[in-house]
Amino acid sequence: MTTRQDCDVLDQEDPLRELKQQFDLPAGTIYLDGNSLGVLPRETLGRVQQVIQKEWGQDLIKSWNTAGWIDLPGRIGDKIARLVGAAPGELIVADSTSLNLYKALSAALRISLEQAPERKVIVSERSNFPTDLYIAESLAQQLGLRLHLVDNVADIAATLNTDLAVLMLTEVNYRTGYKHDMKALTAAAHAAGALVIWDLAHSAGAVPVDLNGAKADFAVGCGYKYLNGGPGAPAFVWVHAKHAQRCWQPLSGWLGHAAPFQFTPDYQAAAGIKRFICGTPALLSLAALECGVDTVLAAESLGGMQALRKKSIALTELFIELAESRCAALGIRLASPRDENQRGSQVCLSLDAPLHEAGYAVMQALIARGVIGDFRAGDPARLDEVPHILRFGFTPLYIGFADVYDAVEHLVQVLKNEEWKRPEFNTQGAVT
Amino acid sequence: MTTRQDCDVLDQEDPLRELKQQFDLPAGTIYLDGNSLGVLPRETLGRVQQVIQKEWGQDLIKSWNTAGWIDLPGRIGDKIARLVGAAPGELIVADSTSLNLYKALSAALRISLEQAPERKVIVSERSNFPTDLYIAESLAQQLGLRLHLVDNVADIAATLNTDLAVLMLTEVNYRTGYKHDMKALTAAAHAAGALVIWDLAHSAGAVPVDLNGAKADFAVGCGYKYLNGGPGAPAFVWVHAKHAQRCWQPLSGWLGHAAPFQFTPDYQAAAGIKRFICGTPALLSLAALECGVDTVLAAESLGGMQALRKKSIALTELFIELAESRCAALGIRLASPRDENQRGSQVCLSLDAPLHEAGYAVMQALIARGVIGDFRAGDPARLDEVPHILRFGFTPLYIGFADVYDAVEHLVQVLKNEEWKRPEFNTQGAVT
Repeated sequence: MTTRQDCDVLDQEDPLRELKQQFDLPAGTIYLDGNSLGVLPRETLGRVQQVIQKEWGQDLIKSWNTAGWIDLPGRIGDKIARLVGAAPGELIVADSTSLNLYKALSAALRISLEQAPERKVIVSERSNFPTDLYIAESLAQQLGLRLHLVDNVADIAATLNTDLAVLMLTEVNYRTGYKHDMKALTAAAHAAGALVIWDLAHSAGAVPVDLNGAKADFAVGCGYKYLNGGPGAPAFVWVHAKHAQRCWQPLSGWLGHAAPFQFTPDYQAAAGIKRFICGTPALLSLAALECGVDTVLAAESLGGMQALRKKSIALTELFIELAESRCAALGIRLASPRDENQRGSQVCLSLDAPLHEAGYAVMQALIARGVIGDFRAGDPARLDEVPHILRFGFTPLYIGFADVYDAVEHLVQVLKNEEWKRPEFNTQGAVT
Repeated sequence: MTTRQDCDVLDQEDPLRELKQQFDLPAGTIYLDGNSLGVLPRETLGRVQQVIQKEWGQDLIKSWNTAGWIDLPGRIGDKIARLVGAAPGELIVADSTSLNLYKALSAALRISLEQAPERKVIVSERSNFPTDLYIAESLAQQLGLRLHLVDNVADIAATLNTDLAVLMLTEVNYRTGYKHDMKALTAAAHAAGALVIWDLAHSAGAVPVDLNGAKADFAVGCGYKYLNGGPGAPAFVWVHAKHAQRCWQPLSGWLGHAAPFQFTPDYQAAAGIKRFICGTPALLSLAALECGVDTVLAAESLGGMQALRKKSIALTELFIELAESRCAALGIRLASPRDENQRGSQVCLSLDAPLHEAGYAVMQALIARGVIGDFRAGDPARLDEVPHILRFGFTPLYIGFADVYDAVEHLVQVLKNEEWKRPEFNTQGAVT
């Protein structure tokens, strides 16, 4: 079994170890929740100060031109493009993931309904992140379509038929960390005549993504998880070049207009992906996002996303090894795919009965020890398939092998000492 | 005629003079563009630093609870509510003005189509801010309705008939500063059986607004103009209590769910206005907005919006008096309503021929002298009705009477010396 000493050696030999210096990490904390909210880059405060004091405070309205505010959604979009296999000019930063999905799904459905009006079904997974399902439910209801949710990945294949308009999936599942085969599923859906939208919320900056290589149709993603953009950072949206110049989206705000500063009363969509911009972007949050994206791009000279993925797999494999060998007898079992190729950059654990209901308290006890993960309640109606889980994200930019060792050690202590039984850990109320 | 000395006395006697201390104003600048982007409050930098360093950097994911991030859209909403005649819990901060208008207009149209499906017309003004028209155009097209645009305020009355579903107006026109009679128009539209949406982009923090007193149905507004929330600050949306608990909006993101942290696959709208939240808010920009709103609320102990309005009228009256008396012979004329009751907190000037085409260059020459206003091109097809204009906003929180005097003096010099003829002022490319 891997020892703490082994982990120190792994950290010393880690070719990505210097990347951690990019962040201000809180002392005494092992932060395994970067899949929910990424940490603070050292550059962010200074950059946001610059935007506030100089660009806003001193230069005021001029900064739309002189500080390049107007170009920021595209400039940051081009940077994110490098992380997800997209070309410059194909991806834009705007609004939230939910809103970008609304735009992308609207666009995809219009294309589908124009080409094949008999296709009336949107397919997704019941375990997809709820906001994706809520947005799809809204559009299905408005357009008289049906949202079909599958309970298992294996059930997707049967839905790829002549009823299918759009297959809408999140590449890496937010609960289990299950990672779809984007290229194979996209090809299969295309073979069935449907379009595919990928939500990269748990992919961008976490796993290598090749949108153009997979020939995906649309993609959206999140700025505040693995991209370290800060709380509620703006999201992004990408459209394949074959759709970009002609597709329609309904949230037609003035900054998505071909000539916004001509202030004409009629809407004319901007060229390409810029038509997916709606209103004025939240500049402070946008500037912070760029600093976060830069922390991931800093890995490019060290092997980029492939190197990050290699370390991510090593971290999650180590966590699984240690958690299973040291905690199985304490009632812990793996709830994420064991196959590294089917796993994103996170690992989830479930708890055997009678510990199963104690998941929330176990996580609170861990957090009290400085190990920050999160708890996600299961589906009360089918806890066998969707159990309560302890969720741990491993961000190779700033998590090391000794961190993984120590996190498991804390988990062992929480379980052995039954620390989770303390009353202060048994008050439900978790957020994100 | 009012002299510079008179203006100094007016500033000394101004009961609101201390409010200017709330801002970091750039030296040597008379900023008359707060109607486009408000200035930087002194509190903002420290507050955003706190969010970045402490709440994000140190406390990370916990801050959703411990720093109250989750309550911020409602907390700031309640503050804005005090400025626009809304009750606590009726108004929420979210997304952009464009997106909030999409939600509000969708909600209003669904109510109307359920109650009176034969009403197929949305009415607005051709001179409304373009994003409002683009959003309405999108929804009209999707729902098979007609967007009817009137060219003159006097033409609105004739549209209030049994075809009208929704009357959608911006209370204060972004170009001319024309201010509608919200209460009278709302009552007239209601008498015709229609719903009314008000865009308060140039009203909130600028003129007293009484949404409940006017019995309006929906309202949206902007955070980065008179509310001083910073570039691209989040916007707000309000719904009358009679609609709030039952109205639908299509952008159904997870934070508008009744129980977002239960992560259920089915959407259940949150109670009341909270259902108008969509995705995760941009926290840095949201925190900055609160500081901006606080600068307006600081006037509450000095008479609030009524006192701000009184000073705003005095400032705009002074500007008109000086501009007309000193610049009329130089080719300048008033393009805003002369009646103070029909005017927001801005004044626009147009230029007589042959100076008419020089508006952009005149504004650039003024900006070079430190007087920041903006230029808005007219409608080439009907320049008589929609001329090129010089636009000046007067924010009583930080603009004084001597500022107004000096701004006009600079304008006189620009025109007398024909400074606008310099080549560097004749390069088009204005933003916002």
